[in-house]
Amino acid sequence: MARRKAATPIQEFPLIRQLQRRFERKSPAVLQGIGDDAAVVSIPSGDWTVLTTDLLAEGIHFDVRTATLASVGYRAAMANLSDVAAMGATPRFLLVSIAIPSTLRAADVTQLYRGLMQACDGYDVHLIGGDTSASRQGLFLSITLLGTTKRGRTLFRHGAKVGDSLYVTGTIGDSLAGLQLLTKERRTARSPRLRPAHRRFLVNRHLHPTARVQEGLWLNQSRLATSAIDLSDGLSGDVRHICENSQVGVTIDVAQLPLSPACRAYADTQGIDPTTLALAGGEDYELLFTVNPRSERPLERQARAKGFQITKVGVIRPSRFGIQAVSTDGVAKPLPVTSYQHFR
Amino acid sequence: MARRKAATPIQEFPLIRQLQRRFERKSPAVLQGIGDDAAVVSIPSGDWTVLTTDLLAEGIHFDVRTATLASVGYRAAMANLSDVAAMGATPRFLLVSIAIPSTLRAADVTQLYRGLMQACDGYDVHLIGGDTSASRQGLFLSITLLGTTKRGRTLFRHGAKVGDSLYVTGTIGDSLAGLQLLTKERRTARSPRLRPAHRRFLVNRHLHPTARVQEGLWLNQSRLATSAIDLSDGLSGDVRHICENSQVGVTIDVAQLPLSPACRAYADTQGIDPTTLALAGGEDYELLFTVNPRSERPLERQARAKGFQITKVGVIRPSRFGIQAVSTDGVAKPLPVTSYQHFR
Repeated sequence: MARRKAATPIQEFPLIRQLQRRFERKSPAVLQGIGDDAAVVSIPSGDWTVLTTDLLAEGIHFDVRTATLASVGYRAAMANLSDVAAMGATPRFLLVSIAIPSTLRAADVTQLYRGLMQACDGYDVHLIGGDTSASRQGLFLSITLLGTTKRGRTLFRHGAKVGDSLYVTGTIGDSLAGLQLLTKERRTARSPRLRPAHRRFLVNRHLHPTARVQEGLWLNQSRLATSAIDLSDGLSGDVRHICENSQVGVTIDVAQLPLSPACRAYADTQGIDPTTLALAGGEDYELLFTVNPRSERPLERQARAKGFQITKVGVIRPSRFGIQAVSTDGVAKPLPVTSYQHFR
Repeated sequence: MARRKAATPIQEFPLIRQLQRRFERKSPAVLQGIGDDAAVVSIPSGDWTVLTTDLLAEGIHFDVRTATLASVGYRAAMANLSDVAAMGATPRFLLVSIAIPSTLRAADVTQLYRGLMQACDGYDVHLIGGDTSASRQGLFLSITLLGTTKRGRTLFRHGAKVGDSLYVTGTIGDSLAGLQLLTKERRTARSPRLRPAHRRFLVNRHLHPTARVQEGLWLNQSRLATSAIDLSDGLSGDVRHICENSQVGVTIDVAQLPLSPACRAYADTQGIDPTTLALAGGEDYELLFTVNPRSERPLERQARAKGFQITKVGVIRPSRFGIQAVSTDGVAKPLPVTSYQHFR
């Protein structure tokens, strides 16, 4: 409904429109991409459609001082891929809208799109449309991702049962450590004691996380998981969504949280307990999921065969237990939310 | 991927999240609405999926001084409904994301949602998800609408053939007249000579336009139209999209443009030719479409039977003719773009 003239039109907007078309990829499933009133796609007959959307605001979700636009684009796409992964769905079609302040050039927007498309590399995801607008102040990015699952086969946050085991993929806390390294680097000197390889690993985990799409598809198609969520805000907060939606409680064994050597080393340089990073840190985009205890053996056997790292980190309890954590000293206590909370 | 704390958190965000759930409507086609990593919907087996998205920025697409938030929401939803209408599709599922500046209260956002849902009233459209964010400055609204059509049955901008007749639904220019009335009212006194009923009609056409969803479905399902677009930017610009996508030219008969009595009366008070409003004015959300001349009789007969106003306004020509208009004095000249052009 673009009607009024842009306050700060930039000459380069036609370039940006061309750019969007450049990043389109042909697919028999895309009947109409960019260039009509709407995109038209074909969904496998009978499949369910999974839809997720994120609106990202400059100064709220990203800071162009600590991240390149390529990284902003990459992480925006990855966050949506991760949501689709947590549903056990196959990501398919991407819509990208941007409101561009007059301070940005077409070359900057190219970088943003490069990052977006880099995140989609390796998945059969097609950019099919979007919208471009001027912005009086700040860059805004809105991503919508459409995925598909077989009818009746979707992994929800609800579905966890008392007695189920709680698992997590990969290692957690890395992205927060990477963010802290990037932020501190600007404020003070580079941490002197952290090995460059560890630093690179953690910064890369923050700037270039990987959504666990293959793991989500496996957990769903194998029917091994009873519920799942992706760790976007942080374990201490995100586990609550499984508990609330499933009407259960949980005990987390903090000693079991999977930590990377780099995260341990970073925590060591800061004199902090690395499990605080693992509980608080978001944007790892690992999957947190529950399985019936009888499924543990096939789960772990299949994970090994597929090369997926998974770790049991807790047990689902009746809801009256609440959210508890057994700390490394063996004491069970209510687990406070230390991760990101939306607008509180 | 909301990670960083909001710069200006507002206490009312939890209310807004509740609000979104309040406006959710149950449907057997919605397997999972708001409250999981993604929404899950069921599309009729074999149907094609139509997707459109708009990103609206305060100060660019709307001005809270001339429009209420209810109207902003209403028009945002209607713009997307109109895009789906122009594809001849049935609108079904809505995703709404908002970035909210600290100046807005939950009550304001309620008004925005009320407007959105009012626009969807009368259609079987379900709010299934979205995202909520803080904004450092300005309100941003991102809407994604999913529609469906029968496989292989979609109305595109391409498809117009030389010799086809060009038609438009309803009357055009009303929304621009309404906008001018709203804008001028703030600057000067109310136009003294325009009848209140005409003024109300025009302002209402601007603030509460109606997407031609039923007309689009009819034109598509009857196979009468060969191409279609909705008039969101204005006829003089939008007709070019049909011509470019169909690789044809057009001659428009300006004397035939359908004008409302109110639009004529308004133009009279301003001492301007009402056809300039009809050619330049956007946001009428009427459909511009082409039909094979042999289909004109059944088209007009069916339109009468269904109570749809349609008017023949031109003829499709070979592309070398370009975009011509026969003005009211009978002279054919190239038609300049007087309607809204994105970022130029």
